Amino acid sequence: MQRAQDGDAGQAVEEALHPLDAATQLTWTGDGFTGLMTRSYWNFAGPYGGLTAALLMRALMQHPERRGDPIALTVNYCATIAEGPLRIRLRAARTNRSTQHWFLELAQGDDAPAITATAICSARPETWSHRPAQPPSLPPEAELVRFPWEKSPCAWMARYDVRLDRYTPLAPQPLPEPVAGAQTGLMRDEPPRPLDFVSLAAFADCFFARVFVARGTLMPVGTISMTTWFHATAEALARQGAAPLIGHADTRVYNHGYHDQSAELWSQDGTLLATSHQLVYFRDPPVRPA
Amino acid sequence: MQRAQDGDAGQAVEEALHPLDAATQLTWTGDGFTGLMTRSYWNFAGPYGGLTAALLMRALMQHPERRGDPIALTVNYCATIAEGPLRIRLRAARTNRSTQHWFLELAQGDDAPAITATAICSARPETWSHRPAQPPSLPPEAELVRFPWEKSPCAWMARYDVRLDRYTPLAPQPLPEPVAGAQTGLMRDEPPRPLDFVSLAAFADCFFARVFVARGTLMPVGTISMTTWFHATAEALARQGAAPLIGHADTRVYNHGYHDQSAELWSQDGTLLATSHQLVYFRDPPVRPA
Repeated sequence: MQRAQDGDAGQAVEEALHPLDAATQLTWTGDGFTGLMTRSYWNFAGPYGGLTAALLMRALMQHPERRGDPIALTVNYCATIAEGPLRIRLRAARTNRSTQHWFLELAQGDDAPAITATAICSARPETWSHRPAQPPSLPPEAELVRFPWEKSPCAWMARYDVRLDRYTPLAPQPLPEPVAGAQTGLMRDEPPRPLDFVSLAAFADCFFARVFVARGTLMPVGTISMTTWFHATAEALARQGAAPLIGHADTRVYNHGYHDQSAELWSQDGTLLATSHQLVYFRDPPVRPA
Repeated sequence: MQRAQDGDAGQAVEEALHPLDAATQLTWTGDGFTGLMTRSYWNFAGPYGGLTAALLMRALMQHPERRGDPIALTVNYCATIAEGPLRIRLRAARTNRSTQHWFLELAQGDDAPAITATAICSARPETWSHRPAQPPSLPPEAELVRFPWEKSPCAWMARYDVRLDRYTPLAPQPLPEPVAGAQTGLMRDEPPRPLDFVSLAAFADCFFARVFVARGTLMPVGTISMTTWFHATAEALARQGAAPLIGHADTRVYNHGYHDQSAELWSQDGTLLATSHQLVYFRDPPVRPA
């Protein structure tokens, strides 16, 4: 599938757009963008957090004053986003010789911002390099488990093909003892789509809340803040093309209503494309009758 | 040393303040705070990044509308801060039932912001908890190495007592091959000071740039963005008191002028108090005559 060329608007082209491109279409307004939230990447009560990150990244990439590649994006999920029109305001808070710092807000109607975010762009010069981190090891592809997405009520799950080294079946009650939260897997857009900063920003959130994995049950959760760093240049992303990423996520601590989650996104050729750290809100699941 | 009581202004009390409290004194202006940057925590060309984080945390803690404990702080270092007056503007971008999202800026004179930041506060209810991460292991205290702070031109180093499991002596030229960037150590304020969110925000930056460690030399560096998550309640911090924290930092990848750094800050009783992730700008050192 091809992304629409500039100026090729119209229904026929709309239908040819990849769902991620369709969901992140924005219109420039002079001081930001307007867009439309649909249910194409819907989660339980609002959009998939990765789609929101992708929308902000799209705004950044399309801003006429952007200089260099994105290197950092922090998204704060302040409130639920509803279906319907949205607007993104963004400004370069400070532009230096090597870096450009952005502040972004996403809002709907007259409400206070649902999202605040900061981003950083920079030239990526050739420098000394050293890559001590090693890609996670994966079992043979045939042993990976595709989560039973077709049973999910969440539309965003059908937008990805994710095959994991292990997963905890979700039961009505939590496990008596928690299991490991770590998971490693192959992840791609469904249908496949060439990697760019927009989709990489979305992949950063493409892991279940670790507390679901550790406890083997659903409960009220939500990403509160997610910081993603882009370690690769636009050229390195282009080399990856539409092949699956290798993703890994784990958590250090679950307590007092929040847990951390750190994720790595690797290319097929063993390049660490992005790392992402998020703070997740959780509350104990309601106790259901046996 | 005691912190000044409210209303106990004056030179005698100023002198009794811990250096961190003196350096983070702020005056409320109705929509933010004013403060004064001195050289007491000076780094090479501006203040220690941890002091800047502490200043923002102080502003947040003193804001009359703050609700709950800080759980997240992202600081974007957009430009160098100079000696002299500074002002911090902050506003609650959105307050929900459980979380409060803040946007902060630090500026001087008529310049664009030198710092942009976001922070999140929340109640920390008792919930299910699980703490899979284990504290880093440390050699016996007698084997730890205190960096030769007294030789440093950087004032902030004298404000901390940091004893590390290993360090790379800094030479005029880089090592022929990089060594591990990981370090673990005991870290406390000098003089000792009871832990609170202000000092914990500062400790998050209390590691050398990993690229100094890996290459064994100095070079142009700077923290570009630092995200810290506070996993502990104010009560847990109070239990730690003025005892040294156990800190650990490491890096996954150094390339294209930036490297990541992830740090953990543990209490003496094995509680993960905070995790912090930062993106560090670096450039190759100038080649000096042999």
